[in-house]
Amino acid sequence: MSVATYLKRHTNHNVVVFSSESYTAYSQCGLPFVLEGKISGFNNLIVKSNDALMGMGIALHLDTLVNIIDANNQKVISDIGVFNYDYLIISTGSRPFIPPIQGRELKGVFPLHIMSDAIAIDKSLNNTSRVLIIGAGGIGVEIAASLVKRGLETTLVEALSQVLPLTLDPDMASLIGNYLNSLGVRVITGIQVESINGSQHVESVTVGGEILLAETVIVATGLRPNVDIAGEAGFDIGPTGGIVTDERLRVSYQGEFLDNVYSGGECAQVIDLITGQPTISRLGSAARRMARVIGENLNGKISNYPPTLSPNVVAVGDLVAGQVGITSHIAQVNDISVVSGSSKGLTRAGYYPGARPLHIKLLFANEKLVGAQVISHEGVKERIDAFSLAIRMGATVDDLLRWETSYAPPVSGVIDPVTFAVDDARKNMEATA
Amino acid sequence: MSVATYLKRHTNHNVVVFSSESYTAYSQCGLPFVLEGKISGFNNLIVKSNDALMGMGIALHLDTLVNIIDANNQKVISDIGVFNYDYLIISTGSRPFIPPIQGRELKGVFPLHIMSDAIAIDKSLNNTSRVLIIGAGGIGVEIAASLVKRGLETTLVEALSQVLPLTLDPDMASLIGNYLNSLGVRVITGIQVESINGSQHVESVTVGGEILLAETVIVATGLRPNVDIAGEAGFDIGPTGGIVTDERLRVSYQGEFLDNVYSGGECAQVIDLITGQPTISRLGSAARRMARVIGENLNGKISNYPPTLSPNVVAVGDLVAGQVGITSHIAQVNDISVVSGSSKGLTRAGYYPGARPLHIKLLFANEKLVGAQVISHEGVKERIDAFSLAIRMGATVDDLLRWETSYAPPVSGVIDPVTFAVDDARKNMEATA
Repeated sequence: MSVATYLKRHTNHNVVVFSSESYTAYSQCGLPFVLEGKISGFNNLIVKSNDALMGMGIALHLDTLVNIIDANNQKVISDIGVFNYDYLIISTGSRPFIPPIQGRELKGVFPLHIMSDAIAIDKSLNNTSRVLIIGAGGIGVEIAASLVKRGLETTLVEALSQVLPLTLDPDMASLIGNYLNSLGVRVITGIQVESINGSQHVESVTVGGEILLAETVIVATGLRPNVDIAGEAGFDIGPTGGIVTDERLRVSYQGEFLDNVYSGGECAQVIDLITGQPTISRLGSAARRMARVIGENLNGKISNYPPTLSPNVVAVGDLVAGQVGITSHIAQVNDISVVSGSSKGLTRAGYYPGARPLHIKLLFANEKLVGAQVISHEGVKERIDAFSLAIRMGATVDDLLRWETSYAPPVSGVIDPVTFAVDDARKNMEATA
Repeated sequence: MSVATYLKRHTNHNVVVFSSESYTAYSQCGLPFVLEGKISGFNNLIVKSNDALMGMGIALHLDTLVNIIDANNQKVISDIGVFNYDYLIISTGSRPFIPPIQGRELKGVFPLHIMSDAIAIDKSLNNTSRVLIIGAGGIGVEIAASLVKRGLETTLVEALSQVLPLTLDPDMASLIGNYLNSLGVRVITGIQVESINGSQHVESVTVGGEILLAETVIVATGLRPNVDIAGEAGFDIGPTGGIVTDERLRVSYQGEFLDNVYSGGECAQVIDLITGQPTISRLGSAARRMARVIGENLNGKISNYPPTLSPNVVAVGDLVAGQVGITSHIAQVNDISVVSGSSKGLTRAGYYPGARPLHIKLLFANEKLVGAQVISHEGVKERIDAFSLAIRMGATVDDLLRWETSYAPPVSGVIDPVTFAVDDARKNMEATA
């Protein structure tokens, strides 16, 4: 929808959009907060109404499947007919990956991905006192915090040994795990779900031999790029499972990038800035940046989507956890030797009401910043963004030592905790040198 | 005190400290918030007690004046005797500049600079219903917001045409001026105070022919480096009125930098990173960074204080205004041609409770970021810090266009407002090219 609105604003292209969903231009990331009750009603998540989109001149076909893309003849075959195109944009997003757990087809077991999932969960929760969430990634931890705040007995199960395994180092993740515990969430890590039990409707879940009662189960075990149609059409699918794109987000077709087919969002494979490896950026913010690049290219400009850092934040109850660049685990996998520096400070002067702990962890490779993780109640997103820019500009530990930070008692201590994290990293570098 | 504690932690130096104040190691920046009642009692501002400092082995002489520095013979002559030194650190800070307004000597007229000023004001306010503040710099606007919140009838008078004239452009300053109005502060700009009136105690102030009743007057018309003793001793005083220092913060004595005399804080003249001109950095955060540089140099390292950007934030009631680098006015004075870009966004997703307006203004010279101003209720300090690093690293408009920002509904919109400010600047550059 972002490409579509860009094109209607800046070009004379006819724009036709197909979506298998009934809703479009809504905030997927807001779904957990509606389920919590923090936002009243799903309609509030609609960023632009269908009427407004059609009013812009976009031909909008909802609840409509595209079944075949014929790239050679530049046409798509949909439920409602055949459409020719000059330019094709594949933004089919992702779909939930649900592991083959016994009982996953029972009633009361849901993915949480699109609006209709959330509406179904919301209904189910009205008859539920116990909910179990499988998977402690971003969606899993957000929804766990939301549902315990809604008053449900909430259990979160993660097969890996920590919450947020893809975005946080274990030491930082434990802060989030402990916080979820303090909210009343039972957090079980390092154990796989054995089965989901019940006759027609889920009644319990077996985890490590223990039977946990739950009337609603939410499966948040990750997403996979939604590329079946693209793959069948002959577009190249990369090792990430995403559609191979170049720096202009043009799609590769049998080894060649086409000038008239683009892909963006979480079905498109892009390049990671630190590792140089193919990656998928699953963020709404990344999708919007890609949309702009595609729109500009279709508007006759040469516009590039540079290798990505995918800075991300999740709101877990009143805590925020943010991360950018690589984690220690990703460094290890990619044979990148890193030195870290950590600090614990406060978000305000110690004597000022409302001061909260702030945790920072920085990772350096060859003295250059390559990763950052921040956890606190406030000021996390903006710090992650600062580190995102710092990494992109190649900031070294010495650059960060020269970084002047601002101060006022209601918003910080005299010395920003980042200074102490950089000091710690410098000390660790000297120790390992 | 920061140098003193650094030296006791890292070296074997004997450390002797003289202060004309009765209190030391307290947060000056916290004084307005005690006067507001947000922080209960001045004692809460004491970062380290005198006992703790003496316990570290610091010889602490409070309420003690140093009258003469004899640099040739490496000694100081104080009220309590003559002391020899191997190293001398001059951190005499600043003192309030009170313009020669008729009646400024009346009872009930106070500067707000050190703890004893604030204590005197606090007492006076108990018998006051009307307060008038002269000067709308950082201290003036903070104390105006604090005192109107304390329930006083509050007037703020600024001779220049806007509040925060040294740190904000007029368009950004008007947001703060309007906010102060909305709190109930009467803000008068562009008019000088003619006289302070009363027989023994202040009764009113005459401004633009109007007589404004006030039982307490706070004069916040700026600070001047406190360098009398240093100047008399033959140390060189620069065009800013501060003590001339080099990059190691060594003090200049008759044109030569001495190896055993250092100066830091708001009595020391340093260099502005953007203009290359001498400047004074009046920030607690800057003072602490300088203290560290001095400490490291006295610890046998070569440590430099690089040219400064002085990122600063002020908390005006519930609003925060931040600035770093140069303003449009400073650009003009220094013949630097700048192009600006502005945006108004929200601190959270529009549908998320508590979303507040966020205003960003960026200044570019030769496509490089040279200044930033941010106003909002949250996330200001961290954004100013990000811009501080960006300016220091020479970020261009294109670097900032490639800046990936993070997103979660409780802490941001999908596209960060900074992106729109950069877009706006790019558009303005193209228009002026």
